[in-house]
Amino acid sequence: MDFGIETIRAAAQRIEGRVRRTPLLTSPTLDELVGARVLVKAESLQVTGSFKLRGALNALLCLDDARRESGVVAFSTGNHGQAVAAAATMTGSRATIVMPADAPRVKVDGCRWWGAEVVFYDPATQDREEVGARLIEERGATLVHPFDDVQVMSGQGTVGLEVVDQLEEGGITPDAVVTPCSGGGLSSGVVEAVTTTHPRVAPFVVEREGYAKMAHSLASGRVERVPVVAGVFLDAIGAPNVGRHTLAALSRRDVTPLTVSDDDARTAMREAFRTLKLVLEPGGSAGLAAVLAQPDRFAGQTVVVVASGGNVDPSVYAGVLTP
Amino acid sequence: MDFGIETIRAAAQRIEGRVRRTPLLTSPTLDELVGARVLVKAESLQVTGSFKLRGALNALLCLDDARRESGVVAFSTGNHGQAVAAAATMTGSRATIVMPADAPRVKVDGCRWWGAEVVFYDPATQDREEVGARLIEERGATLVHPFDDVQVMSGQGTVGLEVVDQLEEGGITPDAVVTPCSGGGLSSGVVEAVTTTHPRVAPFVVEREGYAKMAHSLASGRVERVPVVAGVFLDAIGAPNVGRHTLAALSRRDVTPLTVSDDDARTAMREAFRTLKLVLEPGGSAGLAAVLAQPDRFAGQTVVVVASGGNVDPSVYAGVLTP
Repeated sequence: MDFGIETIRAAAQRIEGRVRRTPLLTSPTLDELVGARVLVKAESLQVTGSFKLRGALNALLCLDDARRESGVVAFSTGNHGQAVAAAATMTGSRATIVMPADAPRVKVDGCRWWGAEVVFYDPATQDREEVGARLIEERGATLVHPFDDVQVMSGQGTVGLEVVDQLEEGGITPDAVVTPCSGGGLSSGVVEAVTTTHPRVAPFVVEREGYAKMAHSLASGRVERVPVVAGVFLDAIGAPNVGRHTLAALSRRDVTPLTVSDDDARTAMREAFRTLKLVLEPGGSAGLAAVLAQPDRFAGQTVVVVASGGNVDPSVYAGVLTP
Repeated sequence: MDFGIETIRAAAQRIEGRVRRTPLLTSPTLDELVGARVLVKAESLQVTGSFKLRGALNALLCLDDARRESGVVAFSTGNHGQAVAAAATMTGSRATIVMPADAPRVKVDGCRWWGAEVVFYDPATQDREEVGARLIEERGATLVHPFDDVQVMSGQGTVGLEVVDQLEEGGITPDAVVTPCSGGGLSSGVVEAVTTTHPRVAPFVVEREGYAKMAHSLASGRVERVPVVAGVFLDAIGAPNVGRHTLAALSRRDVTPLTVSDDDARTAMREAFRTLKLVLEPGGSAGLAAVLAQPDRFAGQTVVVVASGGNVDPSVYAGVLTP
């Protein structure tokens, strides 16, 4: 099935009632700071603390009963793993999650709380896809890819459908939509959903400075990889490559890639705390970080920013608040 | 005009479109922790970071044009001041806010950001009502009382009306409703709104351990005072007395008063961070703190908890997260 607005709409029907319609928040203080009207889609308030539940649930609900009962495997820096763990429990499946040994404790605990088994690997010496593939073969389980899967992308796209509805309720026409980008699952879904209704909106995807794999891939037309490094602050957007499907989807739109530094993310986390009372994790703040770091680009505009997650260890968060 | 469900409904119409309909959030992790179904009304996500905007806006909108143009005065530990400052700006008035010298920096800055003048007093040696009264006489301004005013109480009661709507949308019947309580503005409004629709709900109000002025007042039938102390951690529920109107309203219902310690509030702030990704201030977490500290009281029930505000200094919050 080809990814597009129809698969996103089907996903929305499939997962309805199992995910939260997250609020689209504003702050006059934040607007003044940026010099733009900023609408923050707070997916940090989603069940499991990130948007990832949407894609995982849609993928699980698309499996036939036999495959769902055989269990699922996910490799994840954390949010996807927690989402697959929750989606498996919600749909009567069971999950094994492959995580880097340095994954934030809060994310490991989240997977286990939802009843998943967690298998660790060393990101410096092991390839997570190979570790996952071996488990799948051994257990007869189905892989739920964190991003490069039409049903996962479609589930994430329901964030964009909700934004479109919320904009319509407020009588608001957006000028730009800004999403964090790692493998491209969230960004491809959100960009597809929002640009379908608002063809003149300018879509931006935000990556880690020095690791702009989607920017490289959009430029070359191929799936590009970046080196894997351990202990990434912006861990939620630390995947080593984009997806074939996500690249194809974003290539159809006039997407502008941006990058943010760790310090940009720290600033955004502090401003989300101060102006919105939202707990954002580093990667989840990347969209807001780009808007705060490059306000001239958005001056006077109406900008939708996806705040994609809030799973951050308390000690890391405390360190960001009191540098 | 007598306070009641009709004045609350009128307030809701008056302030509609100027306040945010805050989400009613849940967390499976939190539910397991408490052993109950917990629904958290996130007024920390309200514009100005607390429910107080509702009452302030309703009070300002009830003034005639001449009085509104002469300006308003508020005395406040912070959230009410910020709300009156914002409401004044939103309605073409201007505000002077009387605050204790030890008010959290974030709240002082908030008042000023909204364009108000801030006048400090020493809570150990000065009575804030006297300081406010002098300013009112000098400036010909109108006092907006933080709680003991029918229109302020009615505005705060719109929190409860929204909860009733949100429960109905979810097909949920509540067993208990738990709100932080200082002067009683929020709690009288919420209890009135929720018990009108759900007469069998058990209402709880939560005060500071050792400073349970509403509990004393409900027992004696008189407005009781507690000693004023400086540097209160639960600053948002640190008023020295309850109100005549708020006591009358709560006396009509079978309200159970509870108390929480500073440590109870710290635990609740950490759990709101971990399970809900919400920034709560100490006083704003008092309802959740009571539920977490006395889970046996709520076992197996459906409990609505009002999380009333999120205005906390980053250094205080960091200290709570990493004790």
